[in-house]
Amino acid sequence: MTSANTASRVPELSPGRTDAIQHKIDRKTKPPGSLGRLEELAVQLGRIQDSLTPEVRSPAMLVFAGDHGATEAGISPYPKEVTAQMVHNFLNGGAAINVFARQNDLLLHVVDAGVDADFPEALLAPIQDAGDSARADAAQSPAKIINAKVRRGTRNFVHEDALNDLELQLCFERGARIAQALAGAGTNAVGFGEMGIGNTSAASLLQTVLTGRALADCVGRGTGHDDAGLQRKREILAQALERFRADHPDSAQLPASGRPEENDESQAQALALLARSALRSFGGLEIAMMSGAMIEAAAQGMLIVVDGYITTAAALAAIAIEPGLRDYCVFAHVSGEQGHRAMLDWLDARPLLDLEMRLGEGTGAALAFSVVAGAANFLNEMASFEDAGVSDRADDPD
Amino acid sequence: MTSANTASRVPELSPGRTDAIQHKIDRKTKPPGSLGRLEELAVQLGRIQDSLTPEVRSPAMLVFAGDHGATEAGISPYPKEVTAQMVHNFLNGGAAINVFARQNDLLLHVVDAGVDADFPEALLAPIQDAGDSARADAAQSPAKIINAKVRRGTRNFVHEDALNDLELQLCFERGARIAQALAGAGTNAVGFGEMGIGNTSAASLLQTVLTGRALADCVGRGTGHDDAGLQRKREILAQALERFRADHPDSAQLPASGRPEENDESQAQALALLARSALRSFGGLEIAMMSGAMIEAAAQGMLIVVDGYITTAAALAAIAIEPGLRDYCVFAHVSGEQGHRAMLDWLDARPLLDLEMRLGEGTGAALAFSVVAGAANFLNEMASFEDAGVSDRADDPD
Repeated sequence: MTSANTASRVPELSPGRTDAIQHKIDRKTKPPGSLGRLEELAVQLGRIQDSLTPEVRSPAMLVFAGDHGATEAGISPYPKEVTAQMVHNFLNGGAAINVFARQNDLLLHVVDAGVDADFPEALLAPIQDAGDSARADAAQSPAKIINAKVRRGTRNFVHEDALNDLELQLCFERGARIAQALAGAGTNAVGFGEMGIGNTSAASLLQTVLTGRALADCVGRGTGHDDAGLQRKREILAQALERFRADHPDSAQLPASGRPEENDESQAQALALLARSALRSFGGLEIAMMSGAMIEAAAQGMLIVVDGYITTAAALAAIAIEPGLRDYCVFAHVSGEQGHRAMLDWLDARPLLDLEMRLGEGTGAALAFSVVAGAANFLNEMASFEDAGVSDRADDPD
Repeated sequence: MTSANTASRVPELSPGRTDAIQHKIDRKTKPPGSLGRLEELAVQLGRIQDSLTPEVRSPAMLVFAGDHGATEAGISPYPKEVTAQMVHNFLNGGAAINVFARQNDLLLHVVDAGVDADFPEALLAPIQDAGDSARADAAQSPAKIINAKVRRGTRNFVHEDALNDLELQLCFERGARIAQALAGAGTNAVGFGEMGIGNTSAASLLQTVLTGRALADCVGRGTGHDDAGLQRKREILAQALERFRADHPDSAQLPASGRPEENDESQAQALALLARSALRSFGGLEIAMMSGAMIEAAAQGMLIVVDGYITTAAALAAIAIEPGLRDYCVFAHVSGEQGHRAMLDWLDARPLLDLEMRLGEGTGAALAFSVVAGAANFLNEMASFEDAGVSDRADDPD
């Protein structure tokens, strides 16, 4: 069951038309390199689409929701009921992600990966509707939630594995089916976000296990712990980590530091196995389902816009399983959550935005779509020196 | 002529409804503070408009173009003709600023403050049309340029003052009239950008004189100098600074470091006079006209979105003249140009974006408008805990 059955779904991008895209950028009416990060993004988008005129088509936001059994241990200052309440808020259009998705013309989809509540049948849509009718921003009233629920919340990872093998596999497969449905509807760029009271804790545990960073340096205030709450959270997570280490005695040696060497197949395989073990052990359902959806989105040739700390943890696990995924990812922002910057560094990722946001829901990803759009737009719409009759540099009269 | 005839046009913002705005933000369905910089922006916008429901109405971009006599000394690797060529590119919709203004629904206006070229009469619109018909993005073909030309380029600041008193005053007044025309057309948020071959040099000289930072640390590669070009630029600007110091023997002592103490009226007046002297001495026409337009935009109660290094230099001079302007300014991004970060620090300004852009034209400001829109939108559109039936924190059950 832990076999790498999604392995090689995502080959690394070939250089393809990189040189041709760069040449097109360099002929635009601007000093070379002067659009900075937008130029990198334009190259990435062009490589993914193997095109000199890449477009962002029907961009979508996927927000995965799930609950965490460990909330009973007191890892969050919010009651777990807030997860389901916020799902209703998403459906009603009142959350921050609704605002930013509307503003950036993103199709918003809310996925129940494992909320510990039963939603009315009338609000549920099947997974295959992800591509179209089950949009939280659609004119339908009320909006619908994509029903991918694997179970009502994870088990409490302090005492036992959050998920079993079958549940983890279902998360991967349902995530993949959602990505396929989006691709079938014509979406070629997708942002990822999440909602789950307690899920910074699972993300912290994934980070410490997969990157070797000390647990205390991976645990932050989440949605708003005070000092005492932060201390309690650290102690609880230390217990969970101790349990994991006891079950996986080899885990502390892997990886040493930094990502596996390229071409070191055995190191890569060990990391992939470790990522599955860590996802099983800590969850959450929404994190694992994001990992599965990201891998399939890349396999479908989509650009993936990764939100904050928890979503980056899902990408971290997914990239451990499918290293080729990395080329398809844009990291939207660095959040205020402790550990996020280090996680991005480990992924060799530079975030686009630093607006000190720490809300989740995909809010940073939604805002970053305007930068992605800027990259595609300048590549497609700007005039070249030749078109515009503008002189190039005096010292470089080509 | 150097009397502070625009002084006190812009009183500092009163606290006004700050507490009420913050309370409204804190009742939104999100952890307190979790929208980071967007929350600060929402408060600023609400204070400027003295409203709990501030809006961004008919947002506009003003791009001021002007030439610099010092280009004959070799301060730029591009020929000065590029300034006029780029103005035509703006009118034809092919420049980066056209792309980003379209993307963000910004009304784009191009202003000839002092380009060293004659544009065809058919392309010129009077200043009073700034608010409406003279939009480079309007359906009219061809688009028009707002004719505010004070002279064809500045004098060469290496040998003499770039502008005389009358020319500087005309720049201020025409800039102010443009801002008034925009306000009359209903615009309440305006981004500033510029085009002028050689104008990083004028900006560097303004920075060194007004902030006391060593000239070498204010001079960067501009649009793309190599090492030899950078060295030549530094030597030329050192001559210009020497001339200025000889004419203004007191200038080196003012200000010591940092902005004037609050309530130190004589220090503030000295800095205001110095800003006028520096603008006269180094120009450019587009920089001085931006300074005048910013002051009037603030007087009209607009939010001002400041682009990169050169536009920030215009804000630096304008704030030296009218300290109250600072409260109305949003600093869009930190550019790749050396000296910009230090200039922002001196203004106690934190840029919204860091995308390593160094193109000018207002491109950073145009992209930052999406963040500004996000701030207004979340404040106006997000549900409160009460509206949404979402539980607040367990430890803070208010």
